[in-house]
Amino acid sequence: MIKPIEWRDNQVLMLDQRKLPWRETWLTCRTYKDVAQCIRVMVIRGAPAIGVAAAMGYALGARAIRTAGKYRFYEALGLIKAHLASQRPTAVNLFWALDRMERTAQALADLSVSEIKAGLVAEALAIHEEDIAINRAMGRHGAERVPDGATILTHCNAGALATGGYGTALGVVRAAVEAGKKVQVLADETRPFLQGARLTAWELHKDGIPVTIITDNMAGHFLKEGRIQLVVVGADRVAANGDAANKIGTYSVAVLARENQVPFYVAAPMSTVDPHTPTGAAIPIEVRPDREITHIRDRQITPDGVPVLHPAFDVTPNRYITGIVTEKGVAEAPYIQSLAKMMD
Amino acid sequence: MIKPIEWRDNQVLMLDQRKLPWRETWLTCRTYKDVAQCIRVMVIRGAPAIGVAAAMGYALGARAIRTAGKYRFYEALGLIKAHLASQRPTAVNLFWALDRMERTAQALADLSVSEIKAGLVAEALAIHEEDIAINRAMGRHGAERVPDGATILTHCNAGALATGGYGTALGVVRAAVEAGKKVQVLADETRPFLQGARLTAWELHKDGIPVTIITDNMAGHFLKEGRIQLVVVGADRVAANGDAANKIGTYSVAVLARENQVPFYVAAPMSTVDPHTPTGAAIPIEVRPDREITHIRDRQITPDGVPVLHPAFDVTPNRYITGIVTEKGVAEAPYIQSLAKMMD
Repeated sequence: MIKPIEWRDNQVLMLDQRKLPWRETWLTCRTYKDVAQCIRVMVIRGAPAIGVAAAMGYALGARAIRTAGKYRFYEALGLIKAHLASQRPTAVNLFWALDRMERTAQALADLSVSEIKAGLVAEALAIHEEDIAINRAMGRHGAERVPDGATILTHCNAGALATGGYGTALGVVRAAVEAGKKVQVLADETRPFLQGARLTAWELHKDGIPVTIITDNMAGHFLKEGRIQLVVVGADRVAANGDAANKIGTYSVAVLARENQVPFYVAAPMSTVDPHTPTGAAIPIEVRPDREITHIRDRQITPDGVPVLHPAFDVTPNRYITGIVTEKGVAEAPYIQSLAKMMD
Repeated sequence: MIKPIEWRDNQVLMLDQRKLPWRETWLTCRTYKDVAQCIRVMVIRGAPAIGVAAAMGYALGARAIRTAGKYRFYEALGLIKAHLASQRPTAVNLFWALDRMERTAQALADLSVSEIKAGLVAEALAIHEEDIAINRAMGRHGAERVPDGATILTHCNAGALATGGYGTALGVVRAAVEAGKKVQVLADETRPFLQGARLTAWELHKDGIPVTIITDNMAGHFLKEGRIQLVVVGADRVAANGDAANKIGTYSVAVLARENQVPFYVAAPMSTVDPHTPTGAAIPIEVRPDREITHIRDRQITPDGVPVLHPAFDVTPNRYITGIVTEKGVAEAPYIQSLAKMMD
């Protein structure tokens, strides 16, 4: 099974997703700051994977705290959490995982510092394992909506690489395949970071699931031509009303899907649903470095002196979403109610 | 004035648009086959520029025919026309320009072969000059629709580089600037060939018109955010009913513009309107080489063994088009009537 991250010998190993599909390089994170840096520069990306990484980073940081005093220990944990939380603003799983680690640390407060440290490592590993189990459950729910023979469009990479393993949107694809359905995937290349062309194509091809790459601007054409039966994407944050932030371009795909009467699903674990974000308007949209637009594989593609814009995410209003696939089932409109019910 | 093509000393010079914005290299075409090759590999591209190039290629070919016999001369012209016409299928200006050159050759049939040759060169130069004049007229009509202070979204390059000079869609922008309006352009980078990031950005920056590059998948986001007041694109072929073929991705922009109540204009000379193509369904869509998707600046971006699709154009149904800007004015729905009237 493809996994983007592993806890091994009290270090965190990450498959360097900046280098895929050209090289399969594993980076070793020895400190929580290494993990933070890897999150920021997108060695690892994808909301659930960021959550797993943050949890492991927190555990790594906790282990390294050199103090017997508990007040100092908890103070240091606070600093570690703040540092990890400041790396990327949009994916709520980052904050969700850190909050969960913090609650665990508090719950273990009566134990010794070394026992708390061990408990935090165990919690990070549990978050990782649960994420995979959640994705499998999500996949089973989502697969019911996939017609046999379907061509499925996806945007960005919401696959094994974006999660603890198995994937959210690609988990739905994998579950459909496991259920005996014949499906194929059209992968938007997903500029600028090319998560579709590099990562989705790589992991599906590795798993023997038929995948074809298109440029982002072709999705509308193939939807219009009737070549796509279903769209499924991941999410970085789902607001309480079902508005969903995901990789830039997702909104466009959603509009084009509805215009052509093709169902559009968001697949995301409940940890991506943020009850404290009432609507999409409240989701902070990360602005990433210009260089990710102006350069591809270190070669400049734009003229000198011409500015670029780089919002890394957009928000798809709930009215374009046919259903939100979670580990608890498929939520449908009105999401404010269906998601709240699943939250309970 | 930026021009992509020149007739000089009985040779055709072309600015190599594959190399922009990194190098301004002029290629010399000595034979009609050189011109044909340059059209095919996109040294020159853009429907009106392809038309100008084809006319010059035809004249170049005519000049090189070594026969005093008129039957042989006209037979050779037929072969030249067929070869030039077979290079790219979608832009109708290619066929329009070659038909016009053929009619000219027939009209001059009573003259000597050397006089016919001279007449064909003159006709090719006339097509070039007329194209620029047409673009200026189109620009004036289109500029009336541009609000002062507007941010204008464009897709691909329908600029000076895509025409004899001045541009169609970018002609509208230039005319708005000349009319004293303060405008700025958002340029879709336009994968895979990056005509927006490379060419539109280059020529507007050179002319001092503010331009910012975005990836194709950001256009919807900025339309939704209210950051764009008008969309204007070129066309490779406009059917009699107003359906318009243009660079892949145009259809998506049109749908997203309508969804957000932003006017969407197509700017194209009457030579791009094809009365023999009843609707968009009859427009042949060129499929271009995989390598243009899988590689950027000679570096591979996709995994080995994963297929890609590469339709180079899509068709925007007339219902998404606010108006078609031509040198005769702005046609509006129903286009079957407004375009026919302009044709007369």
